[in-house]
Amino acid sequence: MTVGWSSPVSFKPPLIGVSISPERYTHEIINETGLFGVNVPTKEIAKEAYYFGTESGKNLNKFKESNLTPTKGKTGVCLVKECPAVLECEVKDAPTYGDHTFFIGEIKNAETEEDYLQENGFPDPKKGMIFWNSSGDKTDYWTFK
Amino acid sequence: MTVGWSSPVSFKPPLIGVSISPERYTHEIINETGLFGVNVPTKEIAKEAYYFGTESGKNLNKFKESNLTPTKGKTGVCLVKECPAVLECEVKDAPTYGDHTFFIGEIKNAETEEDYLQENGFPDPKKGMIFWNSSGDKTDYWTFK
Repeated sequence: MTVGWSSPVSFKPPLIGVSISPERYTHEIINETGLFGVNVPTKEIAKEAYYFGTESGKNLNKFKESNLTPTKGKTGVCLVKECPAVLECEVKDAPTYGDHTFFIGEIKNAETEEDYLQENGFPDPKKGMIFWNSSGDKTDYWTFK
Repeated sequence: MTVGWSSPVSFKPPLIGVSISPERYTHEIINETGLFGVNVPTKEIAKEAYYFGTESGKNLNKFKESNLTPTKGKTGVCLVKECPAVLECEVKDAPTYGDHTFFIGEIKNAETEEDYLQENGFPDPKKGMIFWNSSGDKTDYWTFK
């Protein structure tokens, strides 16, 4: 699925949190495997990102229906080949806050295509990775300037 | 202080999480008051946002030293007048994850200047509100396009 709510939460160890509704199929998969992948899309695949965020994979192979390619990370977690930055995370905690579960994942592996990095090693905001959808609308994906 | 790590975590009730190191003075203030404010800055006050994120208010009045104006929200929490979008939050939980505390706040009041909203009522990403600093550098603030 495509996630709008996430944030780093610790440097040491490197932890990231993602907020997912128990109604989502992804919630079930993360609980079963204890793993999740974070894939940062580009504006070129905004349509696919929208599709992955609005259709459930419960009775549907979303990779088959779209032009995206599934790959396996070092931890065994499923990743998206077309995404230039990926994180592989192992679940360390999963508290419920309101109507969502906040999955805390320890980052076990992180990869970014070199073209998307600045000289200082940080992600380059000008390269068109998608970081925000302000309203849930399919045309409403934003990159930085 | 200026926070880089935050995310909504629930619709009902409306909850937001912010990740803050126990070494920060802000951490002490939130623990004492049980409240925090979230102020979204604009690119016009990027210099001040950097200053508020890198200097501690422990022995310094940052409002006095900068051109920003403190105001009080409905809950009594301190807000920044020059920020077009503000949230007032009451702490509901404060778990430690790695080297940070993740403060979960229930949003008790939210205000956005009308000029910064789209017609659909969502924030307008084109209006120059700051949402990301990719490296911690003072010239490295990004808005959306």
